[in-house]
Amino acid sequence: MGSGDDFVIAGEAFGSRLILGTGGARNHAVLDEAIRESGTGLVTVALRRIDPNAPGTLLDVIEKAGVRVLPNTAGCYTAVEAVKLAHLAREAFDTNWIKLEVIGDEDTLLPDAVELVSAAQTLVDDGFTVLPYTTDDPVLARRLADLGCAAVMPLGAPIGSGMGIRNPYNIALIRETVNVPVILDAGIGTASDAALAMELGCDGVLLASAVTRAERPKEMAAAMRHAVIAGRLAYRAGRIARRLYATASSPLEGMPQW
Amino acid sequence: MGSGDDFVIAGEAFGSRLILGTGGARNHAVLDEAIRESGTGLVTVALRRIDPNAPGTLLDVIEKAGVRVLPNTAGCYTAVEAVKLAHLAREAFDTNWIKLEVIGDEDTLLPDAVELVSAAQTLVDDGFTVLPYTTDDPVLARRLADLGCAAVMPLGAPIGSGMGIRNPYNIALIRETVNVPVILDAGIGTASDAALAMELGCDGVLLASAVTRAERPKEMAAAMRHAVIAGRLAYRAGRIARRLYATASSPLEGMPQW
Amino acid sequence: MGSGDDFVIAGEAFGSRLILGTGGARNHAVLDEAIRESGTGLVTVALRRIDPNAPGTLLDVIEKAGVRVLPNTAGCYTAVEAVKLAHLAREAFDTNWIKLEVIGDEDTLLPDAVELVSAAQTLVDDGFTVLPYTTDDPVLARRLADLGCAAVMPLGAPIGSGMGIRNPYNIALIRETVNVPVILDAGIGTASDAALAMELGCDGVLLASAVTRAERPKEMAAAMRHAVIAGRLAYRAGRIARRLYATASSPLEGMPQW
Amino acid sequence: MGSGDDFVIAGEAFGSRLILGTGGARNHAVLDEAIRESGTGLVTVALRRIDPNAPGTLLDVIEKAGVRVLPNTAGCYTAVEAVKLAHLAREAFDTNWIKLEVIGDEDTLLPDAVELVSAAQTLVDDGFTVLPYTTDDPVLARRLADLGCAAVMPLGAPIGSGMGIRNPYNIALIRETVNVPVILDAGIGTASDAALAMELGCDGVLLASAVTRAERPKEMAAAMRHAVIAGRLAYRAGRIARRLYATASSPLEGMPQW
Repeated sequence: MGSGDDFVIAGEAFGSRLILGTGGARNHAVLDEAIRESGTGLVTVALRRIDPNAPGTLLDVIEKAGVRVLPNTAGCYTAVEAVKLAHLAREAFDTNWIKLEVIGDEDTLLPDAVELVSAAQTLVDDGFTVLPYTTDDPVLARRLADLGCAAVMPLGAPIGSGMGIRNPYNIALIRETVNVPVILDAGIGTASDAALAMELGCDGVLLASAVTRAERPKEMAAAMRHAVIAGRLAYRAGRIARRLYATASSPLEGMPQW
Repeated sequence: MGSGDDFVIAGEAFGSRLILGTGGARNHAVLDEAIRESGTGLVTVALRRIDPNAPGTLLDVIEKAGVRVLPNTAGCYTAVEAVKLAHLAREAFDTNWIKLEVIGDEDTLLPDAVELVSAAQTLVDDGFTVLPYTTDDPVLARRLADLGCAAVMPLGAPIGSGMGIRNPYNIALIRETVNVPVILDAGIGTASDAALAMELGCDGVLLASAVTRAERPKEMAAAMRHAVIAGRLAYRAGRIARRLYATASSPLEGMPQW
Repeated sequence: MGSGDDFVIAGEAFGSRLILGTGGARNHAVLDEAIRESGTGLVTVALRRIDPNAPGTLLDVIEKAGVRVLPNTAGCYTAVEAVKLAHLAREAFDTNWIKLEVIGDEDTLLPDAVELVSAAQTLVDDGFTVLPYTTDDPVLARRLADLGCAAVMPLGAPIGSGMGIRNPYNIALIRETVNVPVILDAGIGTASDAALAMELGCDGVLLASAVTRAERPKEMAAAMRHAVIAGRLAYRAGRIARRLYATASSPLEGMPQW
Repeated sequence: MGSGDDFVIAGEAFGSRLILGTGGARNHAVLDEAIRESGTGLVTVALRRIDPNAPGTLLDVIEKAGVRVLPNTAGCYTAVEAVKLAHLAREAFDTNWIKLEVIGDEDTLLPDAVELVSAAQTLVDDGFTVLPYTTDDPVLARRLADLGCAAVMPLGAPIGSGMGIRNPYNIALIRETVNVPVILDAGIGTASDAALAMELGCDGVLLASAVTRAERPKEMAAAMRHAVIAGRLAYRAGRIARRLYATASSPLEGMPQW
């Protein structure tokens, strides 16, 4: 992307605007390829699913790939659980960065707004750099940003659904509302979804299943790398207005339309 | 894209699946940059708008960039006009390739199905390699393919509208229906539109205004280069199914959904 | 709907803007109920599927319900076939009204633009009142209107698909383009689809499967009656502008958005 | 709708599934007509905007129309404010029903999830029948239902936006998630939006601007009456499956698609 357009979270710059999740990969070799092809510099792992001290594990794969680890609290259903797990993660991974997930429903894996705010407040107070997985509610996003989260990570659609961005208007509203990075998290199914996220003004995209569960994860990882670059470039390039047809007098002013 | 995935039209292979139109560029320097950043190998020009023999013109720009010229019949409203212009183009450009446009409405610039078929038939009979700009009607597309067109070029939305792909189902149906290349032509507004075209199975994308009229054409040209690669990779990678949520028992089988 | 808003086709006024197709009904009793609940005054039947002279048939049902019959050429794949069938229908039903279908693909049952125009021209010349089933192509619609068709009947989606109106922009463009009635034909799946058709400016809606193949055809027929009235009233009432939010300064000017 | 399909909130049955808001009406005569044409049995008023004891006011209009009043807490930005206003409303209107609004942003008027839950809990504990205006978040909706709210009222889009239902999937998820009535509140722009809400399984629809600010409020009120009936009938009638085309082997199983 060149200078002048770094992706900065909590003062740290990343060369790629893509964050990769690890859930769903068939094996470590596949994950290794996906990480490398995606060009990501940040990979999130569920503390619940790994033993940080075991050899030959997920963490070895990530370490060899030279990317940063972002532990997450996947699987937590209450603020208390999530806070406890975040503290374990801080010790295990020697990082105070935490992707905060507090789930409110075991089928849809949608976040629980009330518990999320509570956990985020506690973790910010405890000195964590908190990146909360949240709904696409602009008011909730602002609340999370205002209490000190380092970024907000609204969903496009439920985790693993591949449904893309169901309500682009809300994502655009969130981008207008908060001053921290906005990272689209959950719902991405294919490359155009990731490009759209960036065109809506998101600073980054987090995805897992779209790559790890694709028929050919390596190719999809490459697709996502290009898609995020494409969407970011398009966002900065200033797209043409939408019109019913080119000679129509009135462009559609003031807002995107999906 | 690597070996095994060439973009082949009428036996000729191209390294890029992006075709660039020239209308709307502020000046030749901008167009030159756009062509180079886009990575395209094929550029379409309206015979009506240029004098092939004049020095310092559009054609010089294209020639220096080392890309192939695809003359088009933009501005024609009848088969007779279009056929006549195609013959002039063959002499002027020393190519029997022609992007066939027969417009049926001066406001929307939508194609006229009846005149288009008539012109295509004549030009195929006259030995042209015909690439017709058509509606997104699968039956019309098959008719054009069956009469010998080298590709079909359905619209996503009206020329210059930037409205994207209004009816993705029809584009997917066209891809299932014909055996020649399908090139999405008209309507692309931004990078995610181009990626979506490729994900729907299109073999290539043609766009002009989206780049030439963007605030920063060079950046948008680069965005489109990445978007087309991303969409093609994603198409080949085999995306995950869409589900209402990940643990839902029934994926949405048998078709894409937009 | 009260005075001042009759639905007029070729000089004949109808009290309902809903036209019902008969394909797919389980039996005559179900169809009878559906006709009555729908409030329709015009029912279309495929000449291919009925024997006009047989007793106890579809036609008896329609006659008893006191609604007009509109014969159609369903099942024809060429202009010649369709014209021949139209003439048979004229004799059998003693009407020169014909719903003209010329199908171009046996899977999707999409119309064939070229054969359709040819058949329409012949039938208009032969003195028929022609109501052609067409694609959602505004240029084709205008061509059909210009050659003397009494209405144009663009599809929302393929026959029997229940996919609704895939490209509302084209339907709105058709409404702006022709001066004859526009009747949305094919694709309607549920009540909101029918309401949307009317809100787009359609003068009427034709549907069959949505009612005849619903779990409870009688209730769905009633739903469609209300939906068409609702959509027409809303169209005439002048809806509020769409805005990103109420206090946003710029409404979305100049066009509908779907 | 006839027997067997009453709209019941907190044990009270209503003949219409439409709830009308009063904001935006030009004058009392217009509002009176709108109430009567809409067929509603329940009208919501903002305590902030009226003086319950003044003669010749909004309340007189409602009383004469013979419909029930549902006071709301529009304009409140904290739980404390909303609770206080609800108590005033209880005294003024002699009802313990309250439409609870706790706004989190003065531009979009979106609800504040955290304050909303807090206020709802307090009001339920205080013996109110609470109908909360909420986001389209299924987890938040369940939380509100679980703490004792008599219904949940998710938004389709921001108040007054006329944008319709931006995320139909979430509304459908909410309907599956809670056991209390789901009332679509905010965002309705035209009749098809209201029909869609009902088809998604909502038990009722609340709207104001769509009627009061339409060019002809009376006609739009009638449109909404028909639309809600149409959508409800269609929901109960069991719509046909969506298929890419009628002869396609696989319907889209297991979920709606928008």
